[in-house]
Amino acid sequence: MFFHDNRLQYKVRVDKPNPQFAKALQQAIGGVEGEIRVCLQYLFQGWNSRGPVRYRDMLLSTGTEEIGHIEMLATAVALNLEGSSSSVIEDIVGGDSLMEKIVGGGDPRHFLSGGLGALAADANGVPFNGSWVVSSGNIAADMYANVMAESTGRVLATRLYELTDDAGMKDMLSFLIARDTMHQQQWLAVLEELGHGSTNGVLPIPNSFPQSNENQDFSYVFVNSDVTPDQRSEGQDRRWTHGPSLDGKGQFREEKAQPYGDEPMLAPPKPEGYAQVEQMQKANDPS
Amino acid sequence: MFFHDNRLQYKVRVDKPNPQFAKALQQAIGGVEGEIRVCLQYLFQGWNSRGPVRYRDMLLSTGTEEIGHIEMLATAVALNLEGSSSSVIEDIVGGDSLMEKIVGGGDPRHFLSGGLGALAADANGVPFNGSWVVSSGNIAADMYANVMAESTGRVLATRLYELTDDAGMKDMLSFLIARDTMHQQQWLAVLEELGHGSTNGVLPIPNSFPQSNENQDFSYVFVNSDVTPDQRSEGQDRRWTHGPSLDGKGQFREEKAQPYGDEPMLAPPKPEGYAQVEQMQKANDPS
Amino acid sequence: MFFHDNRLQYKVRVDKPNPQFAKALQQAIGGVEGEIRVCLQYLFQGWNSRGPVRYRDMLLSTGTEEIGHIEMLATAVALNLEGSSSSVIEDIVGGDSLMEKIVGGGDPRHFLSGGLGALAADANGVPFNGSWVVSSGNIAADMYANVMAESTGRVLATRLYELTDDAGMKDMLSFLIARDTMHQQQWLAVLEELGHGSTNGVLPIPNSFPQSNENQDFSYVFVNSDVTPDQRSEGQDRRWTHGPSLDGKGQFREEKAQPYGDEPMLAPPKPEGYAQVEQMQKANDPS
Amino acid sequence: MFFHDNRLQYKVRVDKPNPQFAKALQQAIGGVEGEIRVCLQYLFQGWNSRGPVRYRDMLLSTGTEEIGHIEMLATAVALNLEGSSSSVIEDIVGGDSLMEKIVGGGDPRHFLSGGLGALAADANGVPFNGSWVVSSGNIAADMYANVMAESTGRVLATRLYELTDDAGMKDMLSFLIARDTMHQQQWLAVLEELGHGSTNGVLPIPNSFPQSNENQDFSYVFVNSDVTPDQRSEGQDRRWTHGPSLDGKGQFREEKAQPYGDEPMLAPPKPEGYAQVEQMQKANDPS
Amino acid sequence: MFFHDNRLQYKVRVDKPNPQFAKALQQAIGGVEGEIRVCLQYLFQGWNSRGPVRYRDMLLSTGTEEIGHIEMLATAVALNLEGSSSSVIEDIVGGDSLMEKIVGGGDPRHFLSGGLGALAADANGVPFNGSWVVSSGNIAADMYANVMAESTGRVLATRLYELTDDAGMKDMLSFLIARDTMHQQQWLAVLEELGHGSTNGVLPIPNSFPQSNENQDFSYVFVNSDVTPDQRSEGQDRRWTHGPSLDGKGQFREEKAQPYGDEPMLAPPKPEGYAQVEQMQKANDPS
Amino acid sequence: MFFHDNRLQYKVRVDKPNPQFAKALQQAIGGVEGEIRVCLQYLFQGWNSRGPVRYRDMLLSTGTEEIGHIEMLATAVALNLEGSSSSVIEDIVGGDSLMEKIVGGGDPRHFLSGGLGALAADANGVPFNGSWVVSSGNIAADMYANVMAESTGRVLATRLYELTDDAGMKDMLSFLIARDTMHQQQWLAVLEELGHGSTNGVLPIPNSFPQSNENQDFSYVFVNSDVTPDQRSEGQDRRWTHGPSLDGKGQFREEKAQPYGDEPMLAPPKPEGYAQVEQMQKANDPS
Repeated sequence: MFFHDNRLQYKVRVDKPNPQFAKALQQAIGGVEGEIRVCLQYLFQGWNSRGPVRYRDMLLSTGTEEIGHIEMLATAVALNLEGSSSSVIEDIVGGDSLMEKIVGGGDPRHFLSGGLGALAADANGVPFNGSWVVSSGNIAADMYANVMAESTGRVLATRLYELTDDAGMKDMLSFLIARDTMHQQQWLAVLEELGHGSTNGVLPIPNSFPQSNENQDFSYVFVNSDVTPDQRSEGQDRRWTHGPSLDGKGQFREEKAQPYGDEPMLAPPKPEGYAQVEQMQKANDPS
Repeated sequence: MFFHDNRLQYKVRVDKPNPQFAKALQQAIGGVEGEIRVCLQYLFQGWNSRGPVRYRDMLLSTGTEEIGHIEMLATAVALNLEGSSSSVIEDIVGGDSLMEKIVGGGDPRHFLSGGLGALAADANGVPFNGSWVVSSGNIAADMYANVMAESTGRVLATRLYELTDDAGMKDMLSFLIARDTMHQQQWLAVLEELGHGSTNGVLPIPNSFPQSNENQDFSYVFVNSDVTPDQRSEGQDRRWTHGPSLDGKGQFREEKAQPYGDEPMLAPPKPEGYAQVEQMQKANDPS
Repeated sequence: MFFHDNRLQYKVRVDKPNPQFAKALQQAIGGVEGEIRVCLQYLFQGWNSRGPVRYRDMLLSTGTEEIGHIEMLATAVALNLEGSSSSVIEDIVGGDSLMEKIVGGGDPRHFLSGGLGALAADANGVPFNGSWVVSSGNIAADMYANVMAESTGRVLATRLYELTDDAGMKDMLSFLIARDTMHQQQWLAVLEELGHGSTNGVLPIPNSFPQSNENQDFSYVFVNSDVTPDQRSEGQDRRWTHGPSLDGKGQFREEKAQPYGDEPMLAPPKPEGYAQVEQMQKANDPS
Repeated sequence: MFFHDNRLQYKVRVDKPNPQFAKALQQAIGGVEGEIRVCLQYLFQGWNSRGPVRYRDMLLSTGTEEIGHIEMLATAVALNLEGSSSSVIEDIVGGDSLMEKIVGGGDPRHFLSGGLGALAADANGVPFNGSWVVSSGNIAADMYANVMAESTGRVLATRLYELTDDAGMKDMLSFLIARDTMHQQQWLAVLEELGHGSTNGVLPIPNSFPQSNENQDFSYVFVNSDVTPDQRSEGQDRRWTHGPSLDGKGQFREEKAQPYGDEPMLAPPKPEGYAQVEQMQKANDPS
Repeated sequence: MFFHDNRLQYKVRVDKPNPQFAKALQQAIGGVEGEIRVCLQYLFQGWNSRGPVRYRDMLLSTGTEEIGHIEMLATAVALNLEGSSSSVIEDIVGGDSLMEKIVGGGDPRHFLSGGLGALAADANGVPFNGSWVVSSGNIAADMYANVMAESTGRVLATRLYELTDDAGMKDMLSFLIARDTMHQQQWLAVLEELGHGSTNGVLPIPNSFPQSNENQDFSYVFVNSDVTPDQRSEGQDRRWTHGPSLDGKGQFREEKAQPYGDEPMLAPPKPEGYAQVEQMQKANDPS
Repeated sequence: MFFHDNRLQYKVRVDKPNPQFAKALQQAIGGVEGEIRVCLQYLFQGWNSRGPVRYRDMLLSTGTEEIGHIEMLATAVALNLEGSSSSVIEDIVGGDSLMEKIVGGGDPRHFLSGGLGALAADANGVPFNGSWVVSSGNIAADMYANVMAESTGRVLATRLYELTDDAGMKDMLSFLIARDTMHQQQWLAVLEELGHGSTNGVLPIPNSFPQSNENQDFSYVFVNSDVTPDQRSEGQDRRWTHGPSLDGKGQFREEKAQPYGDEPMLAPPKPEGYAQVEQMQKANDPS
């Protein structure tokens, strides 16, 4: 079972709201390379796991971490949409031609269906699809599915990093990119334990993104989301919690899951989104 | 952010595995009335919430609880599929003509794609679809969407209860049905706080299912999944945590989320599912 | 069975064609909150209805009315697209930054696939999906599904109202918003008949949209689309046809369905859409 | 706009309920060859029509007729499902090996999601998809799309005819097959008016189904669903309303739409479907 | 089985890269009117064909040709996207208001998911859907499905032709439009062989596109992709390989499939797309 | 561009037709692990390839081979369905309880929509979905996507092997399983060339399937489908065409693509499928 902490795993800040970037971020939420997919994929693999137990534990820990990534990205979408109301928008109409040509306008459903909130869909508004959740019952096939998900996921995150010049968004992405660095190697480490040879050299994927731009405090740490008392994994010898990382650039370590971010605080509803009157009157009422 | 406990929110036991019932259970996992939908719906509503904070807190707590329901049901599917291997199946070919006519065979993808594991799909194998996740930015519209989800969800659960005569499965469903009883009223309680009149009489939906068959220990309790230190909600006056329930049949109360079930233990992989050799050799190795 | 009148239920006029608004309107046709969904939902609930007959009659009447709403919106899309040909477009490139940022360009399939016609899809071009049609066999669950559909539908319509400054479009939406006001209460009235308490206060959803902007001639009238001779419903006591409305702001009444609009007349095909020659030659030939 | 008559366009009778046949019938409701598709396709083509007006009128008439076909089939599904409750099922477990091998069990969602009612989905439970609705803006392309829909639709209907030995179902299908015979030729007649050569010989598709098995009273009649006063089409010279049919086997004629069937009367809800108590108490209460 | 030649069936040249046009082109790749659909449709009809053999041969030849059309269009998308990197983009921001209003920005997934490559999706990013592949087992129904696909496909291609003023793109489309002219008639020729009357007059669909704009060298030639030794079809009398075309405007002939284009050469990966380092270092290394 | 040979890449024989197995085989055609997915995935990766050229060549060769695998499986489905007509079915109703419990009946659309032919859908009738086609623009991410596809694909094929006792089907699968063995290593060989360490040990996935059951003549051979004159790849040093295989169990070699199977010959249409009369009369007419 699961628990929730109001604080984010890592801080999410938007300096200059941008509904076009909100649209692009949706790919990382509900796209085939996105966080809902990896979250459900790791959780289903864990729930369906018929052993060994050490892999089940790992899958559930990381699947749980990913729920928090959906949360961060949904928050980022909501904050970016605060720039889409008529009163603010003048400030953000800029000359960013790459964004303009590639992304075009925002996602109309962000306003029409969501009232300036995130959707369970990709950057084109195509809904998340459960067929992407791979849980094959064969641990090696599953691990390759996971490496693939984290590889295309990290490629996506680096492109989002390229697309924005908002310092807050770059900071958030530098964290998520680092987590993808770790997760790629985590699944490959299982393969190594199962007899697969070493995999150094090609990692992290993409290897053209300067690792100085990722938040390297989080690049080689296994985040343990497990709060079961008397955890069996403590003190165990696992390839992904200590020793050199598979890319040869760091040392694996383990850390108890903890919030590095604050509780997010969205702006009150805009009148043109037609929330209920009571929502607007008591938007941030803590009681 | 989120945490995980290896134990289930409530116990899941299958006395007589049945792949046809596994197929039917998928509707409660990945169907339009299912738990992935409500889980993501409440979480997205919480993440997109622009106030008041009390509703955000409630949405995130219950969304978190629902992840644990997907977990219970996925476990139930996996356990029911343990009867689908050739060695066991003779025992379970029975004369249940209702099941036979309505459900027919199992879901071939349970074996072909999942190796005897659950899918993110409905009872016909149609994948979960993110378009079902409603988060409109209007709290009243969202609450009605939630009441609808819990109403069709509880109807589904009572029909599943009807379809099985497995005591373990009936016990699990008696818990889930009770949670739906609570959740229906929880969302209606928000509407009452917002000025909606009382809603007694028609609840719980369906009102034809004998409540003696639901686990009434859980019918009127708000499960608080929030583990943030110094919770602001403590001591607050909320319609859904004390006082008479909306159906007039119980008293609301609040409880910290806790596991009533054990850690699930699936059988080792069957040879005909072609897991990796190492999985079968060390299936339940605790190290 | 069904009949058709060439005239629209209410008039549809576009003063200043706008393909971006055409794209946004698609959400009200083929989106999850849209009219195809409610149309099929009410009709399937009616066709599947196992009593009482009074609810079956109501469902079929309102489901039939909704076909006419799809018709109105499809007409509105087609009229808005008349501004998307090269000869007219100069006039409409304006400085509407909210539209620009939220909606971006039009839907390319309006031209590429439709030849300037409406699609059975949402504002992102995602096709209508039959999984949204809820017909559970439980009248209370169905009614909540309907309230939810009309609540999110009315929220959508008010946002579309906000997005346009075209007087014709605002007039059309003022009618549709009023119908949603009625339909929300119509389904709640069934719940009230079934023992649900009164529901005043929170309605109509959203309650922040000024009701002076809706066409209040249609806010509390049940439109009876039934043309069966010797209707059994005449003279019956039904909560949704007389007495005070559930929001306490009006009096319910009943009216035979009738056209308040004219037969729509679209412009001839534009040459760049490559209709057949004969279509362009005899576009509005009445013979 | 649209109107409804409680009576069916043609009678629907099920002598021996069969949930497997109910599953197969879903293909004709929500499948790619089904009635929701043709209904929406003809209506959208009509609403998007930029002339000539005669084709718009025809499209709307036939699109309106098709709503009534969905109604007939949904009724047929509901009636076939009345055999799926435990008390009746013993009678229908038979030795029909073709049905058994091809269709297998029923659709579990008929019970789980629908409470013994029809779905907006195909014979595998895959939801209806709006992408199937073709309205291209080119009348010739549209007419070929319509011929294709009616050809695959008639092939489907003849296979359903083959699959059942229920006299009531065969009678209903003999009507629907006849309507497809007409509709195929209706769209080809438009092409003939536009300069396409004659099309005799290959029709109706399939030409291997004995026409003596279709209800030939309805094979060559254009059903006019238009109730607009002062119809412009009266007395006009249209290829599809008089003269020899395109297959050379009949004479076209026109008839005002009228019900040949009665109002359907479904059985009360079965207890195991968990409708509301009030539904079961007053199922067929006419008030 | 199948073989590949590195050269394109016809040349693909982009003079002025345009990511908006790349988005529009996706409709011809992965849309309902697109080449993946016709490719799979003809191949499945061929593979499922139960005779006569002459039609099986034809279906497989043309299905094979269509794979090469997907290839051409995917190449065209990739080339158009070479203008979407920040360094080039200044040159292409132009004042094309039709493109701007209809298409808006590009497809964000072209960059985010594809690294400037084509997708298996339509112009709105909606994925290709296998339900569009019609193979009914009835040759006449299948042929009408094919005529419909080529009719809506040619309408689409002419609209794409209208949307671009790039000489290279117009040249490529003039070839594809010509192939659609042939393919429409090819399927109608089968119907004529089966007893369908002549079909002159209405063809090609659309008949409003000036045929002087299509590459008429390819308008009436059956491309034989079959490389089986000792082909049985040689010397056979087939309606679609000689004699007057069905539209009366040309003479059918047959030609062995051969490349009229060169091997495509895309630009190296742009740094902002984060390919692997090795890809960028050795992008066009022929070894 | 592409060419076709009427003969299959490998022989397809069905000794005992079985519509249930036909349903299961659909997963290998149109499922997420299936051949349409890998076919389009490799082709799109090739078409979008921005270097090096050696990988583009390899991707197009293998993508082309996969079209032939769809062909083999579609043929296998059609042959298995020849047992589903009423006249044959008595022979095949057997006591295979694993098949019965897991697969249940056949796919009703095989008869209703396909007339005993294959569909572009999975084992539950869910249509193929283009979102599964991964082409990221990063060669390492793409290679992992391909390894994952071939791993889950081989797992699927071994389970299908387990499900049937038809000697012909086992032989066909023994070939496809061997090709997956090769393809897994082919993509990993690219990673090795790019700096990835050796990958011996875990392969082929699954490693629990006895390789003596796969057709080892095809387990380590790169099939070159390229028929371009003057191929640049000849004589080149590529990891996947010679030297020891990555699993250490064989030697890589290269072979020109060639047919090992014959031209398939399906039975004539069954009367109950309502093909056109002419099809049945001249089913296997070679002219």
